Amino acid sequence: MNRRGLAVLMRTRIRPSSAAHSTELSLFSPTSEADKMTTNPEANNKPSEPSKQISANGGDPDSLHKFSAQVSAQRGFELAREAMHSAISMNKTEVLDSILREFSEGYFGLSMEDRCKLLLVLAKDYDLNRNQVRELMNQYLGLQLPIDETGTEDEGMLSTFYRMERNLRHALRPKYDVLFERLNTHPGGLKFLSVLRADLLSIIEEDNIPSLRALDSYLKEKLVTWLSPATLELHCITWDDPASLLEKIVAYEAVHPISSLIDLKRRLGVGRRCFGYLHPAIPGEPLIFIEVALMKNVGQTIQEVLWDDPPIPECEASCALFYSISSTQPGLSGINLGKFLIKRVIELVKREMPQICTFATLSPIPGFMKWLLSKLAYQSKLAEAESLDMSCFYKDSAGSAFRENLLTAEEERAILDAAGESTSGKNGMEVLLNLLKSPNHDWTKSDRLLPALKPILMRLCARYLLQEKKRGKALDPVANFHLQNGAVVERLNWMADRSEKGLSQSGGIMVNYVYKLDSIEQNVQSYFSTGHINAAEDLHRVIQQT
Amino acid sequence: MNRRGLAVLMRTRIRPSSAAHSTELSLFSPTSEADKMTTNPEANNKPSEPSKQISANGGDPDSLHKFSAQVSAQRGFELAREAMHSAISMNKTEVLDSILREFSEGYFGLSMEDRCKLLLVLAKDYDLNRNQVRELMNQYLGLQLPIDETGTEDEGMLSTFYRMERNLRHALRPKYDVLFERLNTHPGGLKFLSVLRADLLSIIEEDNIPSLRALDSYLKEKLVTWLSPATLELHCITWDDPASLLEKIVAYEAVHPISSLIDLKRRLGVGRRCFGYLHPAIPGEPLIFIEVALMKNVGQTIQEVLWDDPPIPECEASCALFYSISSTQPGLSGINLGKFLIKRVIELVKREMPQICTFATLSPIPGFMKWLLSKLAYQSKLAEAESLDMSCFYKDSAGSAFRENLLTAEEERAILDAAGESTSGKNGMEVLLNLLKSPNHDWTKSDRLLPALKPILMRLCARYLLQEKKRGKALDPVANFHLQNGAVVERLNWMADRSEKGLSQSGGIMVNYVYKLDSIEQNVQSYFSTGHINAAEDLHRVIQQT
Repeated sequence: MNRRGLAVLMRTRIRPSSAAHSTELSLFSPTSEADKMTTNPEANNKPSEPSKQISANGGDPDSLHKFSAQVSAQRGFELAREAMHSAISMNKTEVLDSILREFSEGYFGLSMEDRCKLLLVLAKDYDLNRNQVRELMNQYLGLQLPIDETGTEDEGMLSTFYRMERNLRHALRPKYDVLFERLNTHPGGLKFLSVLRADLLSIIEEDNIPSLRALDSYLKEKLVTWLSPATLELHCITWDDPASLLEKIVAYEAVHPISSLIDLKRRLGVGRRCFGYLHPAIPGEPLIFIEVALMKNVGQTIQEVLWDDPPIPECEASCALFYSISSTQPGLSGINLGKFLIKRVIELVKREMPQICTFATLSPIPGFMKWLLSKLAYQSKLAEAESLDMSCFYKDSAGSAFRENLLTAEEERAILDAAGESTSGKNGMEVLLNLLKSPNHDWTKSDRLLPALKPILMRLCARYLLQEKKRGKALDPVANFHLQNGAVVERLNWMADRSEKGLSQSGGIMVNYVYKLDSIEQNVQSYFSTGHINAAEDLHRVIQQT
Repeated sequence: MNRRGLAVLMRTRIRPSSAAHSTELSLFSPTSEADKMTTNPEANNKPSEPSKQISANGGDPDSLHKFSAQVSAQRGFELAREAMHSAISMNKTEVLDSILREFSEGYFGLSMEDRCKLLLVLAKDYDLNRNQVRELMNQYLGLQLPIDETGTEDEGMLSTFYRMERNLRHALRPKYDVLFERLNTHPGGLKFLSVLRADLLSIIEEDNIPSLRALDSYLKEKLVTWLSPATLELHCITWDDPASLLEKIVAYEAVHPISSLIDLKRRLGVGRRCFGYLHPAIPGEPLIFIEVALMKNVGQTIQEVLWDDPPIPECEASCALFYSISSTQPGLSGINLGKFLIKRVIELVKREMPQICTFATLSPIPGFMKWLLSKLAYQSKLAEAESLDMSCFYKDSAGSAFRENLLTAEEERAILDAAGESTSGKNGMEVLLNLLKSPNHDWTKSDRLLPALKPILMRLCARYLLQEKKRGKALDPVANFHLQNGAVVERLNWMADRSEKGLSQSGGIMVNYVYKLDSIEQNVQSYFSTGHINAAEDLHRVIQQT
């Protein structure tokens, strides 16, 4: 049964709407607002609409309601702020639960604007005490280093140093550290902190406020130490898991959206595996998960993985193909859990199915088209300027050094041939640009264009993956992720993802990265030390054609 | 069946020997030395005995073996030290697993003496860089505070402060911080750190070296933040749990030793519960566990809980009696997990068995006899000195202010009467002291002495629990623990623990603390703020008799 047939059969897509989230595990209490807010912060960006009831005093009900909504929003902000203050300043022996609950519920009830205001209060009013820090530093600098004339350390003096250094460490902790620590102790608190950081990140993206950046970087350091991979439980997610957990998989699958219940069931069924990393303090919700297909050979298209072929008997599989990895917590951005997850999944699969000897991915190339289109557009502009002799466009004659023909002479000819009449006067890059930008990816439907473009796009894609860098690392984020973990770029696959997303991102090309167990460590080291991208020989050869 | 019958029946006590630990979950690999070392560090205090093989060169085999053992111990130390250095100094992108494994296995292979040496190296050679700290401080102090004349903060200046404060925080971290963080990320690393801290504590107890104290206090702060109670799983331990876990319960039960398999089975059977706190990074080993008996009324003797009465049907129970709480990790000393455990167990029992309305303990009073005997001995000495007119014993006449008759006139008479002829010329306190110190607790076997001593010891015990303080807190550690958690001292129970340990610690007296759900918070606050010990009315009255 093909994808279309299934879609007709099912009619219902199960991507959750905000209502679907009401089954989520609550943060603090089963009836709290926290529920709906957790994954849909934007839903609460505006104060809730006032009910349409007419007020008794006969005034303009609309403006009255608007006013009362404002007042209640203001009140909500004040309450959340007070709860936050109590949560930070109360004595550690006082019982915290109710106050922390009050704070987090209050926070979830705020609009995004008020959340931002509150986070600013947190960052500014609960920063460290600079006067105290300076005083301690002056005392510290007044001490003689605890080394006597003979160069040996004086144990007695050292005691003083240890004590003062401890005090300095504590004084250099912003006051909001206490809030983070207390929330971490609290059931649901870690999840709340992840939501709070997600908010922070989205605010910073809009407006890069230094105090919020400092708050974020402090919180991130805390989250890194709390989310030790040794604490995470590797869970094999199956059709027998609770719907509330499976719903999360559907909601957060970021690479190849799950289209129906049957799709989900296949991904958890025979010949397939789905592994999630669960943290004990965030129950029922994997922080990150990976989907695996057990195959005879390294899969070449996402269609065969997800739809076309019935799975083979597992005992015949010799390859574990990782075809999707998704993280569920925007608030944990920058904390690389995927690395540990892949490592542990490989270990587990190897133990349970010793006949599996190849560990590979079938991965998207999310940045390829964006890179290619911008390269082509830039070159077209340069060419245009040159032909019009717009010397102002170049500062000096060296400007032409930026000109680069992305195509070989042969490729240029092939494109112009395939594109036919409408190309007169244009060069190959312009034609390619127009073809790739054509609506509905028309080029993929043409029997003339498709074979002509294939070798060109495949070569350029290899160049993109193997040579385009950013700060010494692969430009493509997925490539960088797998190379960091020690994989090798093994093979490019043409028309491997014909979905709208696949065509837009990478012209339908996908890539296999391979994890070769005996060379992972070596690859990691060479990638980090020299930036060398490990790839199969023939990929290097493809590039050298030019 | 009584205790004696069982003992005869069983013959085998299952308190584990070092061999029993070979079933433990390994720290890093199933065959590593780590296994046996984990809970038996002392077993390796001396280098392993050389094999009795005779050397080929005909020299004195014994001294040769001693020499080669020394060489191999020295080599072991160097290897562990090198592995430690690599674990700290390697680049974070290098793969750590093998090095961390090497370090921990090397550490476990060391004698206690070499461990101490290695920990000193860690504390001293991997401390913070004081010159760097001073330099950063000087730079920091050179900055103008980021507040302009109008008293508002300059955001641009703040950025600099945030950056420098972050650098200072990092510079103030000793270099060994990296080792702790890396171990925490590593499977088995948290357990290893707990063993390492246990070693540290035992070394410090012998020799209070400032650098080791600083190392310990740093590590403790780390462990506190990693062992968040929200991360701990509350597990109801049953007879269906793996033997490797049950073995831990037997090994670590610190209050009422488990005498046989049948004893263990009863403690996990009908009418009983055992709850443990498990950390995901230390699998198969509760960090702390609590034993609960479901009873009609608050139990008065440990005999009835452990042996005498068959359990009642659980539906008839109205009281959950906590009769034992034990922590398994000496390396987590000072980290109060018990408080959270009791709270969560109460919540869980309330939810699952709503008919239970009383939550109480049956607790030992570990410090009572020690306190009483030292009080009595001191008073006897004072009395002796006075009777001999050893004026040098008092610095001045005010010395007599230390004299206190712990007994009322009536109690004095009762004791002298009961003790009979041998008491001539002695006062009541001297007689009491001698009786309590008599071998085999003979006083408990005398029909004359027992009833005479009962009211006296019960009154003094109430005084000990309710009035004797240390830094404003209850002197008795178990009392302090439950009072901190919000319990009330409810009732003293005479001859509630007739075991050797019970008689030595508290003359057989046990105490019920009660957790009254609606006053827990209030009790915590009053205990912490004023040191007030909440107790039942009649206990206060007993004391006021004097």
